[in-house]
Order: sequence, then C-alpha cells, then structure tokens
Amino acid sequence: MTDTDTLTDYIARYSRWGRWGEDDQLGAMNLVGREQVRAAAALIRDGQIISLTLPYDQAGPQPGGLRSNPQLVTTATGTDHLAGAQEKVLSAFGPTGGFGFSDDMIVMGTQCGTQWDALSHIFYQGKMWNGYSAAEHTSHGAARNGIQHWTDRMVLRAVLVDLPVRRGLASLEPGYAITVEDLDDTLTAQGVSVQPGDALIVRTGQLGVRRGNWDDYAGGAAPGLSLHTVPWLYEHEVAAVATDTWGVEVRPNEIEAFQPWHQVALVHMGLAVGEMFDLDALSVACAADRRYEFMLAAAPLPITGAVGSPVAAVAIR
Amino acid sequence: MTDTDTLTDYIARYSRWGRWGEDDQLGAMNLVGREQVRAAAALIRDGQIISLTLPYDQAGPQPGGLRSNPQLVTTATGTDHLAGAQEKVLSAFGPTGGFGFSDDMIVMGTQCGTQWDALSHIFYQGKMWNGYSAAEHTSHGAARNGIQHWTDRMVLRAVLVDLPVRRGLASLEPGYAITVEDLDDTLTAQGVSVQPGDALIVRTGQLGVRRGNWDDYAGGAAPGLSLHTVPWLYEHEVAAVATDTWGVEVRPNEIEAFQPWHQVALVHMGLAVGEMFDLDALSVACAADRRYEFMLAAAPLPITGAVGSPVAAVAIR
Amino acid sequence: MTDTDTLTDYIARYSRWGRWGEDDQLGAMNLVGREQVRAAAALIRDGQIISLTLPYDQAGPQPGGLRSNPQLVTTATGTDHLAGAQEKVLSAFGPTGGFGFSDDMIVMGTQCGTQWDALSHIFYQGKMWNGYSAAEHTSHGAARNGIQHWTDRMVLRAVLVDLPVRRGLASLEPGYAITVEDLDDTLTAQGVSVQPGDALIVRTGQLGVRRGNWDDYAGGAAPGLSLHTVPWLYEHEVAAVATDTWGVEVRPNEIEAFQPWHQVALVHMGLAVGEMFDLDALSVACAADRRYEFMLAAAPLPITGAVGSPVAAVAIR
Amino acid sequence: MTDTDTLTDYIARYSRWGRWGEDDQLGAMNLVGREQVRAAAALIRDGQIISLTLPYDQAGPQPGGLRSNPQLVTTATGTDHLAGAQEKVLSAFGPTGGFGFSDDMIVMGTQCGTQWDALSHIFYQGKMWNGYSAAEHTSHGAARNGIQHWTDRMVLRAVLVDLPVRRGLASLEPGYAITVEDLDDTLTAQGVSVQPGDALIVRTGQLGVRRGNWDDYAGGAAPGLSLHTVPWLYEHEVAAVATDTWGVEVRPNEIEAFQPWHQVALVHMGLAVGEMFDLDALSVACAADRRYEFMLAAAPLPITGAVGSPVAAVAIR
Repeated sequence: MTDTDTLTDYIARYSRWGRWGEDDQLGAMNLVGREQVRAAAALIRDGQIISLTLPYDQAGPQPGGLRSNPQLVTTATGTDHLAGAQEKVLSAFGPTGGFGFSDDMIVMGTQCGTQWDALSHIFYQGKMWNGYSAAEHTSHGAARNGIQHWTDRMVLRAVLVDLPVRRGLASLEPGYAITVEDLDDTLTAQGVSVQPGDALIVRTGQLGVRRGNWDDYAGGAAPGLSLHTVPWLYEHEVAAVATDTWGVEVRPNEIEAFQPWHQVALVHMGLAVGEMFDLDALSVACAADRRYEFMLAAAPLPITGAVGSPVAAVAIR
Repeated sequence: MTDTDTLTDYIARYSRWGRWGEDDQLGAMNLVGREQVRAAAALIRDGQIISLTLPYDQAGPQPGGLRSNPQLVTTATGTDHLAGAQEKVLSAFGPTGGFGFSDDMIVMGTQCGTQWDALSHIFYQGKMWNGYSAAEHTSHGAARNGIQHWTDRMVLRAVLVDLPVRRGLASLEPGYAITVEDLDDTLTAQGVSVQPGDALIVRTGQLGVRRGNWDDYAGGAAPGLSLHTVPWLYEHEVAAVATDTWGVEVRPNEIEAFQPWHQVALVHMGLAVGEMFDLDALSVACAADRRYEFMLAAAPLPITGAVGSPVAAVAIR
Repeated sequence: MTDTDTLTDYIARYSRWGRWGEDDQLGAMNLVGREQVRAAAALIRDGQIISLTLPYDQAGPQPGGLRSNPQLVTTATGTDHLAGAQEKVLSAFGPTGGFGFSDDMIVMGTQCGTQWDALSHIFYQGKMWNGYSAAEHTSHGAARNGIQHWTDRMVLRAVLVDLPVRRGLASLEPGYAITVEDLDDTLTAQGVSVQPGDALIVRTGQLGVRRGNWDDYAGGAAPGLSLHTVPWLYEHEVAAVATDTWGVEVRPNEIEAFQPWHQVALVHMGLAVGEMFDLDALSVACAADRRYEFMLAAAPLPITGAVGSPVAAVAIR
Repeated sequence: MTDTDTLTDYIARYSRWGRWGEDDQLGAMNLVGREQVRAAAALIRDGQIISLTLPYDQAGPQPGGLRSNPQLVTTATGTDHLAGAQEKVLSAFGPTGGFGFSDDMIVMGTQCGTQWDALSHIFYQGKMWNGYSAAEHTSHGAARNGIQHWTDRMVLRAVLVDLPVRRGLASLEPGYAITVEDLDDTLTAQGVSVQPGDALIVRTGQLGVRRGNWDDYAGGAAPGLSLHTVPWLYEHEVAAVATDTWGVEVRPNEIEAFQPWHQVALVHMGLAVGEMFDLDALSVACAADRRYEFMLAAAPLPITGAVGSPVAAVAIR
C-alpha cells in the first residue's frame, strides 16, 4: 500500500463518526460512564496525589513563534501594598484595617505546556471529529468540539505504560516508533491490562532528559506511538492517550503525511490526546509498589470554544 | 470591642503562622493527608461528575477595569485550513495527507472567574501567610506562597452547605451575613458533618440569580460568610472554603476593615479560598439523593508564582 | 437602482485595482509623493503640535466582546524597587549604584482606539484591495496589505472639515449622513480646498459628546460620511479619510449592505481610513486662526501583518 | 574619585530636578518649543520619509523572559469570511452585500522593540525624574511621568551622528564607549552642529550587523555612549538621545553601577531616551546628500501610565 492508502484504509476501518449520533461532541470520552468512574475510584488505595503537569512559566518548552511560554503579568503587587500605594485607593472605601492584595493575569497558548487537544484541534481534508466542517472553527473559536465539553468528563481509570523502565533506559530515542508489541510486552511485565474507557499514559522518558534544556523538544524528533497502534487503540476502546512528548506520535512521521496518527486517532476515532505530561514522579511511584493503574483527574478548563486547554492533571492512587 | 480590636483578637487567637514550620507554603492544606484523600474516595458511589466551573469567556462576570473576562484569540483556524493557507506552509515539510490544525491563546486574569486564591493573594499589615513579607510578591510573581504549591493537593472530601434550599429561597439577599448557626442548622438538616481537612462549599444562590446579567456581582453587595464564622472554621479544621459569590465573605463588610474575613481566614489561618464556584447543578444532585458530601477534585494550574488560578473543579459522587 | 446595483455601480466606476500595478499594497497612499510631503511641511507656521489620539486605557470606548479596551500590565514596578526586591536580582551583576526600573506590557486590539484600518481589514466578496484573495489574511496575519506598508508613508497634508462648528452644534446627530454638499459648503466657508494626496479629516462632534460616557459609541448609530461621497473622494484624489467616529461612515447604513462605504472606499479605492480620531483640540486651534490645513504625522506601528494599528497622530501647524 | 563619587558628582552637577517646576512631567522635552518645531520643519527639503522602526513581530530581538517579541493574534480572518462563517453572524443585521472583515490584537512589551523610555522607567535610590517617589509607579502604572505626556511633543529637529561611516566600519565593537571627542569629531566631519532642543541620533552599526541573528543584542555587550558624555549632553541642551542599540549606553558599564548613564541622563536630566532605532536606511540617505539633520516625528502612543512605548519613528528630510 502507498502511504495515502494506509491512511485512508485506517480511516475507513476505524472511524467512529456517527457512532454516538450526528450531534456528538465528546468522541471517545463517551466510553467513560459512571461505571468507569467507579472503577477508577476503586483504585485509590494510599491516598497519594501526584501532579503530572509541568510548571507554566517562562522556563517551559516553547521556543516562541507559533507558541510562546506562559507569561504571568501583574496588576497588583505586595510591593505596592508595602509602599502604601494601595492604601490611597482602598481608603476611599473606608478604613482598610491593614488590607493589601496582589493580582495577576496570564497570557498563554492553550497548548504551550501540559495540555489536552480538543476534538477541534486537528482537521483531515476539511473535516474535524464526527464529520463537522473545519469551518466550525473560526477566529471566534470552535462552534463544535470545543474543549469545554470535556470539563465534566476527565476523571478516568488510567494505566501507565512505562517503556524506559521496562527497557532499563533513561529515554527512548528520538524517532523510535512505539509498537503494539511494545505496549503489550510492557503491560504484561507490569501486570496490568487496559480496559474500555481507560486513559493510556505512555512514558517515553523524553521529557525527563530534556527538562530545563528543551532544545527542539517542541516539534523536533521524538519517540512516540507508531501510526500502527491505531487498530490496537480502537480495539481496546481506549478513551484517551497521553505521553511525555510534544505530540504523542513518533516524529519524524512514519509515512508521507503530517501527524498521521492524529488524523486517525483524534479526527476519526475521537480520542482525547494529552501532551507534555510530566510522568517522572508517577514512574517512581508506580515502580515502588508495582501498581500501574490509578485514577486520573485531569479536567480541562471550560474555555468556551478553545481547541485545547492547560490542565492540572493529577494521578490519585 | 472596636472593629480593630475584633480583627486583632481573632488574629491573635486563630493564627496558625508557624504551626507547620517557618518554611510552610501550604497553609491549611496541610490538614489534608492521605487519610483524607482515601475518605474522599470512599464517597464516590454513583460515578457522577459535576462541573463547578463557570465557562471562561466574554460572557463572564467581570466588568473590566482591574479584571476583564477571558479573551480567547486564535493563531490558526479551521477556516485557514479550508482556504488552503496552511497547506502552503506545511507542504514545506512534505506531503500533509490532508492535515490541518487550529491553535489559540488565552489572555485572562487568574481570578476572573471560578478560581482559588493563593496564600500570596492577600496581605495584612505588610505580611502574607506564615509571616512572609509582602515584598515576596513583586512584578515577577510570588516568591512565596504561589498557587503552584497546591497543584498536587486539591483533592478533598467536601461538604455542600445549601442555604437557599434550606430556606426555600432562590438566593440569600445581598448583605446577608451567614452565621455559625446557619451553618450548623443546615448541616444538621442535611444530615452531614464537617471533618478535619474538609472543603466547605457554601451555596448562597447569588451566582444563579445573576447568571447572564451580572451587574455588580464582581465586588458589589453579596451574601457571604460572617467574619464571626472564623472560630467555627478554625475549630472544625476546615482546609478550604468555596462559595458561589465573588468574594466568599459578606459584602458590605461587617466591620470597618476591607475584607476582614480574608485577613484572618486566608492570611492567618491559611485557608484555601475558592470563589465564583457554580454550585447550581451540584445543588440539584445533592437534593435528589440527599448526599451532601463528595470528592472535590479541583487542582489549580501550577502557574509559577501566580496569586490565583482558574480551576476546572469537579464534584465526584 | 436597487441597493446592490448602487454598490456594484460605484465599484465599477471607482475601483483602482491595478492602477499602481498588480503587486501594489499601498493603495491611495500612492497619491502621496515627495511633492505632497513638501507641501505639508510648508503648512507648518507656528510650530504647534496637537495630538489627535485618545488615551489608550481602560476608560476607552470599547464595551468588550470583539474588542476590549487596552490593558496595561506590569512586569517591574517602582514599588518593587522601593521594597528592595530588584536589588536582590540586580546585585548578582555587581553593585547597582541605586538603580531601579519599571517595565510593562500592553494587550490591545489594534483597532480598539484611535487607529488606521489596513487595506487588509475589509473584504468584498472574497477579495481585498487590489484584488488579492481574502485567503491572504489568515490567523498568521496579512500576507498582503498589512499595516506595516504605510509606516513610512503617513506624513500628509491634511484638511479639517469641521461640520459642527459650521452648523453651530456640539455634534451632528446619530444617523446623519454627511453629503458632498456638506463637505463643499464647509470647505468653502473655511476658505480651504482639498488637494490630491490629502488627508480629509472630518469632525462630527460625536466623540466629544460621548467622551467618558461612551454607551454605544463603538458600533451604534453615528453621524458619518454618506456612501454617496465616494465619487467626490475619488475625483478629489483624497488619500486618507479620518473622523471622530467609530467607523467613518454613517450608521445605520444607508443601503442594505454592511458598511458599504468601506466596501468601495477602502476595498476598491484603497483609501487609508482613520477612526476614533480626537479632533476637539484641533477644532479649537483651527477656529482660532482660521487655518484648516496642516501637516498630519500619523505613521502606524509596523506590526507585521496587522490589519490595523494604534497611532500617535499629531497635527503640526 | 570612586565610582560612586563619579555618579553622585554628575548627579549633583547636572540634575535638572525642579528646573521646570515641582509638577513637571516632561523633562528635557521642555527644551522643545514652537521655535524648535519650526526649525525642524525648515529642514524638510526633498519630502523623503524614512522609517526608523524595526518590524514588530516574532523575529524581533527579544529572547523571552522579562521581555518577549510582539505576538499578533487574530479575532477575525479573511479565511473566516471565505468560509462563510462571518456571513452567518453578520446577516443577523441584514444583507451584508458581500462584506467581510479581519481583526487582531497585539500582546507586546512596551519596550520590546524600537521604543522611547518614559521618565518613569528608571529610578535612582527610590526616586524618578523631578524627584517623584518610585512609589508613583505601581502595578496600575505610572501616576507620574507616564509616556502619554510626550505624545504631543515628539516632533523634533534631529541630528544623526554616524560613527561607523566616519570610521569606515560596519559597526563599532561591543564594549566600545563613545566619547565626547567621537561626537565632536563626527559632527564636524559631517558639517552639522547640535542645537538646544535637538534629538541626537547616534548610529553604532550594531543593529545592522545583528539583524536577523540577534543573539545577545538585548542586554549583552554593546557599543554605546560613555557615561562621560553626560556633561556634553547637558551643555548642548540635547532633548532626546536615540541609538541603534538595546540600551544607548555602553555595556558592560564603565563604572560599578548598573546603567549609570541612565541614572544621570534620564532620571536627573530628564532626557528622552530612544532605543533599538533602525538607522541603516537613514545612514544611506544622509551619506548620499551629506545632510545629517532632519525632522524626527516620533510621538509615542499615549498609553496611560506606561513606562515606555513602541513608536513609528520617521525621519522627514
């Protein structure tokens, strides 16, 4: 098969457009119902909470251009209070009793750090998830498939696949395509299985080895899922996939298409795709007690019409 | 006692500065340990998830000035893809296979909508939580007590106190000061008690009656906690308080000081204070099965040095 | 003629597409050459400078939604310096000698206040000035007709047409369509004529009567140029038109089309269109010495690909 | 003299605090009156306009951190119009007649590119220009000495001092301190003299050799004015100084103080300081006809309370 054939073949076989109705905007998150949430809750044993989110600040992985690192700016400071500058304003309302305050704003790409892609983030030949026209995303945001639809959905049973630990490496190599065999082998070794509606959390180690010296982490060569994991993800009814890389799938891409895994998995299968998750602390915790399943609480901010969202993701074990 | 005496008296009696060491930056969240997380998990019965967060968009409650509503702006659109404008750029990297994408940025006050105050948000006479100087908050952000310290902490057992339902009202009146008696009465009627390390979620009904027609919701007269709930919160070892109002405490303030409850509860007791939580759907759910306790998963974004954070808060029941 | 006929007729008769070559991105600013700049310089007699720009701040005319008022945010403050917070950082570089600094950022719509429209700001049936496709404007900005092309062009001979002074009114009424007769009558009364390459500055008085209490100034009913001034502007070879209103042309529009004057004058004639110019101080100065012509120095910021720009416009007399 | 003595000596001898009254916020721009504007106008001979401003875009000189390059973001695009997405919204107001539009916003440091420092930008031992406390600059901006005060002032007679042309170099070396002798020698060779109220425009060549490959241009080693030009600038009653470097004065600094020239020239003499001016096209033009004086029209945006402003600076000759 040519590259184009591979892509169209996967799309033909694994597309879920229409499966949850013509008006669906949730995609594979439909696979997560109350039963799955209860199953996730049942995994909480120690009460341990582990953050999976990189700090949002100027030391983040973005080089500028399309995306910059988050910029925190201030509109009121502790030093203003100390200088008596706030007292002048506030005393117009009466005695302040020593009150002072700080305030700030954030300017950030919704996808500049740890984040979920919305189902409106990727298009294939003019269409997004469920067949909606790309014209549903304009400068006013996404009229369909905005990130806000998932804000009450992202509490999931999750399984970590810790490939570098299994291999005894710090990190998989850039360009390494993670195969179905890699997933199965590691899951078996870890003694855990993937259930319908799960989040599959794949650690490559790349974030850890690049931390603080990001170089081309955002968009350059990276280990990641092979395009050919698509059938496996479909059959296992995985609801979400997140990795510690910029773009989940292997780069350079395996076939002559840009981010082909996204074109199938996100656009046609409706998967929630999480990127730049920091999985190093989780890796340590899972290795310590050999429990590789946990509750993932990772609701995106309900930014109306956004095509992604920063997320305060936590593993609860 | 004069107003000033009341404030200094409460501070003298209820300050926890130093209780968790001179370097503490967590405040009352220290009251939440693994045991409390397990207790929260035990409350998940149905697997129901309810969002407590207002949409972040231009229809939000801010009037401009100090704080504006969130502005979503775009850096790539579906319409760009449709017009072939992306193809020109992307094809430099090889065949795209029909790939297109969207991208956006958010400009927002960290406290413009549903949000947690950080312990660096309020000062009393030049000091913030644990006695740190207000000079620790500058235009570069908070060197102490930044919101990021809570990003792996905000999974809590929570209790809803639904005052308007108890009273048969749509909303408490602006200016109504919620008393200790109100809290005890409603908790008793609801058949639930507050435990150490809990989040106390107080519904006043104001958000619901102002929704979409916000008027002076942000900063104007509002029902809210009386200053005199401070001893009760201290004794019950509440870790966090959130309401459906702009500022948790009653406005106008009860004594001649600006936001005096914050000066004690946040600055000296170290409470996590959550504001503009949307509690209406939660109210309906709790009334339906008369279960007023739940897991609150509400981690703030780890924005380094920020004095607050938007939050995708969910109740899991 | 039907409304559509009027529009297409004007376009057919007055379009300048191709007049300055297929690659032109300057439009009517081509009418301003060195001779015109020298003529403008010759008008400087007193050495008086008058600003025509509204303050850029939160008290501006925007109501939020599509456009908000400018937000100034800080990244370093005088109060930080006073508190010694900068000294800690700067002293890493050696003795500071008492040095301190402030710094800030601006977040603003390019068209939120006094501004020039770029020739990429308006489209007619999929085309912008000179026949370029609207697809030349994407989320990456304008590949054609960006505002930056005018940054070394906007020094012009300008003529004020002060209609409310001529009529003895504070302001023309909202909905009043300024006619060719109005322009000719006022110019005659003022003893001044329009030359090829001039900027025509039309004062309606609306900005002055709405100042500080803007209500629907941005987008609501307004006095402004009639669509039927198009032939006059074409024949007089006016290069730029600016007014003290939100949108130059009368609103509500005179025919069944949205901003039809823009569709002809900007898209097809290539005029530089200036909006929300504050002309009140200029009005007083011109009335005082009855000189209604001056040098207008009003270069836009060269923001690459922007479709408008704030501008520090000054009349030099 | 020790370094500290040098600084305090210069301040003692050249401070102009109080010279224009206790309430002055204009500084050395007081030296520019109507006579000076007329003199500037008299220099316009050819009608040539040359932009001195770098493009404001992501290819600018900032490395991120304190200051990032300007980010243009869109809120309406030509591609939205082409896709028919605007028609849906606009047709609610009636027939559009084929109308479409684009819109955008800019997020930028006021000092990220070609810019003027306001007199509130630098402090010396807790004070800014004219002796105002640094507490007059807070997170709400500058209550004193904001950039807006100069918006109707920045039309000046200006003189270019083209040092690399005089020396036959592409650029002066980083670390080279430009002396009084350098200025006098070059001015004499150019056949031009500096008058009271002039802008002194000093070209070092550094911007040209770094263009597009900025490296440490923003804040690193640079040629620039020696601290010891202060007496000369004072005696010549120069109103403004601008260069093609990040910070006007030589870096590393000559004495043990941070930016000592600014501490005298800006804070105490009240000079308008312009940075990152692009002087290469001007250099060519001046060399061609050996006229080194011109009108500089370079009004800052009146951003209320800002400590700097981007500027569309033009030389008119």
